Amino acid sequence: MTEEKWKTAITKIEPNKIAIRGYRVEELMGQVPFAHVVFLLLKGELPSREQGILMDAMLVSSIDHGATPPSALAARTVASGGAPLTAAVASGITAINRYHGGAIEGCMRVLLEAVERKRASGNDTTGAASEIVDEYRAAKRRIPGYGHRVHTEDPRSVRLFALADDLGMAGEYVEMAHAIRAAMTDKIGRDLPMNVDGAIATMLCEMDFPPEMSNGIFAIGRSGGLVAHVYEEQTRMRPMRRIDPVAHEYDGPPDRKLG
Amino acid sequence: MTEEKWKTAITKIEPNKIAIRGYRVEELMGQVPFAHVVFLLLKGELPSREQGILMDAMLVSSIDHGATPPSALAARTVASGGAPLTAAVASGITAINRYHGGAIEGCMRVLLEAVERKRASGNDTTGAASEIVDEYRAAKRRIPGYGHRVHTEDPRSVRLFALADDLGMAGEYVEMAHAIRAAMTDKIGRDLPMNVDGAIATMLCEMDFPPEMSNGIFAIGRSGGLVAHVYEEQTRMRPMRRIDPVAHEYDGPPDRKLG
Amino acid sequence: MTEEKWKTAITKIEPNKIAIRGYRVEELMGQVPFAHVVFLLLKGELPSREQGILMDAMLVSSIDHGATPPSALAARTVASGGAPLTAAVASGITAINRYHGGAIEGCMRVLLEAVERKRASGNDTTGAASEIVDEYRAAKRRIPGYGHRVHTEDPRSVRLFALADDLGMAGEYVEMAHAIRAAMTDKIGRDLPMNVDGAIATMLCEMDFPPEMSNGIFAIGRSGGLVAHVYEEQTRMRPMRRIDPVAHEYDGPPDRKLG
Amino acid sequence: MTEEKWKTAITKIEPNKIAIRGYRVEELMGQVPFAHVVFLLLKGELPSREQGILMDAMLVSSIDHGATPPSALAARTVASGGAPLTAAVASGITAINRYHGGAIEGCMRVLLEAVERKRASGNDTTGAASEIVDEYRAAKRRIPGYGHRVHTEDPRSVRLFALADDLGMAGEYVEMAHAIRAAMTDKIGRDLPMNVDGAIATMLCEMDFPPEMSNGIFAIGRSGGLVAHVYEEQTRMRPMRRIDPVAHEYDGPPDRKLG
Repeated sequence: MTEEKWKTAITKIEPNKIAIRGYRVEELMGQVPFAHVVFLLLKGELPSREQGILMDAMLVSSIDHGATPPSALAARTVASGGAPLTAAVASGITAINRYHGGAIEGCMRVLLEAVERKRASGNDTTGAASEIVDEYRAAKRRIPGYGHRVHTEDPRSVRLFALADDLGMAGEYVEMAHAIRAAMTDKIGRDLPMNVDGAIATMLCEMDFPPEMSNGIFAIGRSGGLVAHVYEEQTRMRPMRRIDPVAHEYDGPPDRKLG
Repeated sequence: MTEEKWKTAITKIEPNKIAIRGYRVEELMGQVPFAHVVFLLLKGELPSREQGILMDAMLVSSIDHGATPPSALAARTVASGGAPLTAAVASGITAINRYHGGAIEGCMRVLLEAVERKRASGNDTTGAASEIVDEYRAAKRRIPGYGHRVHTEDPRSVRLFALADDLGMAGEYVEMAHAIRAAMTDKIGRDLPMNVDGAIATMLCEMDFPPEMSNGIFAIGRSGGLVAHVYEEQTRMRPMRRIDPVAHEYDGPPDRKLG
Repeated sequence: MTEEKWKTAITKIEPNKIAIRGYRVEELMGQVPFAHVVFLLLKGELPSREQGILMDAMLVSSIDHGATPPSALAARTVASGGAPLTAAVASGITAINRYHGGAIEGCMRVLLEAVERKRASGNDTTGAASEIVDEYRAAKRRIPGYGHRVHTEDPRSVRLFALADDLGMAGEYVEMAHAIRAAMTDKIGRDLPMNVDGAIATMLCEMDFPPEMSNGIFAIGRSGGLVAHVYEEQTRMRPMRRIDPVAHEYDGPPDRKLG
Repeated sequence: MTEEKWKTAITKIEPNKIAIRGYRVEELMGQVPFAHVVFLLLKGELPSREQGILMDAMLVSSIDHGATPPSALAARTVASGGAPLTAAVASGITAINRYHGGAIEGCMRVLLEAVERKRASGNDTTGAASEIVDEYRAAKRRIPGYGHRVHTEDPRSVRLFALADDLGMAGEYVEMAHAIRAAMTDKIGRDLPMNVDGAIATMLCEMDFPPEMSNGIFAIGRSGGLVAHVYEEQTRMRPMRRIDPVAHEYDGPPDRKLG
């Protein structure tokens, strides 16, 4: 019954001392923003200034998408039965999987594969993109990360790509993401802009995150929205109501701009 | 079977437009840090600069506390059975409840009650604190938010109170928190410093959050650590191992300072 | 850091030996029905023949109530995001709480209190029932376990009470359940038959189960239906569809009778 | 936004009428045991007498395996944080996945493949078994369903196979299960008896269940044990204790026999 020793490289706890990946938590608090500490936790090192800004924007882009996604509906439905806030939020997070948020991981795998081929083939971005698009078409599969049911030009994607440009963070994955879009337009005759899953996938590739972590990062972001939805459900709606995924109406603050 | 209309004040979704509490998500991204957008989602308004810093520090203070809390152990145990990352994280979040994180809500209720009495009695902070301590002693109950199994002077609490001072955010709840500690030292003869739950409770009172939301805020913060733990479990440890809550060893980066 | 020893009275595991509350699992298998072993696990002793039949009927009464309850909707919604079967079922079970299934516990507490008062007052069932109904009316609260949105005479309740009569299991809790119904008819002028929650509550009282266990018993029964719903969702419906709590249609086997 | 109609073949709900796969629930209650109704729900038809007995024995075989499996540990850990009974049970059920219970599905796939090959090759059971064992050895993979850490001869497996024999239910999957064991003994030189996962897999194949459903069936059975563990945790142990997967002691009823 020998058991290999359990090792963990995340947080060291000693009396009156908490060190996250080596940094004292009290030194991080108030100096390093939450999104940067998430980066530290997941990657082992603090982000550069540019990576930190991108990471933060990515978490904000994931924070909420209204009441219709399965995560919000599941969380509200569970809350409606009387579960405590955290248990309801947990059900929402469980709904984030292969089909809800999962396109991030799927798109990362496409981009990683495409960039690998490009490197192997002497840096021909267009060729690698074209090859991938052909293969997906032949297999009658959609490339994850492109196109959206509601948003034809997703404002979150546009913003993430613009930020990457501004920050000098647009590398070969951004290039490849554009090349695949162009190849699809060319071969399918339809322009499918990247959705937010695809844009996040591209940024995660640029920052060298493993694809297996992507749903977790999305979940960290979305946890903010889920707490808001469950709290609203618990305080505004009556228990055991029929939660219709379409019949709701926004009655929050009107459109406004940052001051 | 008449059903009142479902209204939501959180996020408005229209084609190519996503507005969180009225603000375009793409305007928030890259300009407003994640912790501030969480504040916006939960409170309906963006924080002041000072509130934003405090909110951010609070989320960082909650982000991880090693492998021993029930949330990390539950998440790792569920991952060990083969569940996907998000489902394992969800079990960890479900573990956050009355006894794990719940002292935040408990302490908020004490502080709210104490400050209400203080106001009713002509602003006698010491008197209200003394009254509360007497009542808890008579009922043989512990006041939630004071004392800790491991940390005699929790660095997270010290930092949160220092930040509140520096930011000019230390109001009557901070005052009351100190007064209760002093009353306990006086009456019990033992100095029980505030733990991190108590410190977060105090800050949430200062920022006018409802106590019912506190576990959710803690869960948002802790989601960062849980994703790191589950990913580490999935990539470093073998499935179905015995997860012993004490027999683990830290092998991450050595102590280091912000650059 | 002394820790009191963890003791468990449920199952003893030794090499090649598994004993549930003292009974070898292989002796139970094929001889004692699942519902009776659940009774053994929860109560510590095997049920009498009559208790076993009632326990089995109770679990069957809870096994499914179509696609509209929050448990089924939450489970299907989570499955729709791509979660594995067990994680989706788990979200459904989390939805069973205070408002969904919780009336069992609420009704048990009413019946336990009422019977206690009856005993204290010299066995006046009618008086105790009348008192309870008056108190709930004064507090403008509904007595849990009576009335149903859909079923005016719930066939599951009718059957459970008939079974209890046939089996000679109808004791003072059944008597009290009837007395409370009569008192309500008398005082409110409306006949509210017991719903299935109330009927299960009555039977659990007759079999001396603690109220705190009731949601768990309901969950064991409902787990059967939830697995069926999630499997159907995963195999018949496309992912990420809008799961409307009302717009579904039954296309299963037509009405039929036991052979 | 056309949406195909949602159809469900599970349960029809009308006022005062609940029909499960066509049968009135009140007719099932008290006449058809819970395990048989689970079979009805999952397969669409009631089991034969023999199938019913086997299904019931299978659920009983899964009902509990003490405090050490991840499902029990996760459920108790979540309960320890203060979560309600159902939410804690749900975390336990989420722990049932690829590595915990998942060998049932894995073993079913092996048996289905092996029997298909046997049929294709003119009913040579020994040949098909030998082929499969060779392929797994070449790939250095273990065949799921054989061998156990604790039980060298699992009493649950022995009992399930004996029951299948007695009931005349031992068909070509039972034959293949034995043939694979023999081939392994022959080729590896070590006799690895089927564990309970393998035995359940064999019976599910004999009863024509889809492999994708197997974890769900295991979860229905285990829900009984999980409710018992969570209730014991909530009533016997103090919150937030260290839940050590090995340091527990059985203090329940001594060994006893059915009357």
